[in-house]
Amino acid sequence: MSGGSGFADTPEPPYVAVIFTSLKRMDDAGYGETAAQMSALVRNHPGFLGMESTRDSEGFGVTISYWRDQAAVTGWRSNPEHREARRLGKTNWYRAYRVRICEVKREYAYDEDRGND
Amino acid sequence: MSGGSGFADTPEPPYVAVIFTSLKRMDDAGYGETAAQMSALVRNHPGFLGMESTRDSEGFGVTISYWRDQAAVTGWRSNPEHREARRLGKTNWYRAYRVRICEVKREYAYDEDRGND
Repeated sequence: MSGGSGFADTPEPPYVAVIFTSLKRMDDAGYGETAAQMSALVRNHPGFLGMESTRDSEGFGVTISYWRDQAAVTGWRSNPEHREARRLGKTNWYRAYRVRICEVKREYAYDEDRGND
Repeated sequence: MSGGSGFADTPEPPYVAVIFTSLKRMDDAGYGETAAQMSALVRNHPGFLGMESTRDSEGFGVTISYWRDQAAVTGWRSNPEHREARRLGKTNWYRAYRVRICEVKREYAYDEDRGND
């Protein structure tokens, strides 16, 4: 399990990926604090497997969260603090976003120290 | 269809997403040129639906390409120029990467001008 600039250590597929692509506003007061709170909270949510996240200098970002199954995703979406964070996201921080719920079918890896999977 | 700092304009699910997360080396001579060539080439590949890509200042990046179906993904992986680019990627540019092949099941969108999907 990992967040920030790093790979998520996910299990053998199948599992669920939620791809969240977003374009932030220039004025994002309060965003960092809420993002840190959500990042801490999600780590303890049942069925959470990991996260990969990055954002460029123009405010375009991708965050992918990985989940054991669809029920875990639904559970996280029902979390009251997460609901409130999503409301704030629309009101205060995001110009636009897309959410795509996916089933991961296959995965492979390369590490320069280890070669291929 | 879009690349760089922008959203991919994908159709109604289901379709296929290939999540490519990578950590680049500091010395990436030749990377930009090959990346631009691949970006131009993939746009004309049958079944390509779009791409979303971002990389942070630490060299961690996410590129998601969207495809009509698995056959289109397989076709692109068989493209000789793409094969050569992947070989160069391992030899010259990437410390590590992950590839996850996914089926997109549901998608929703928010745009500040339009509200929810």
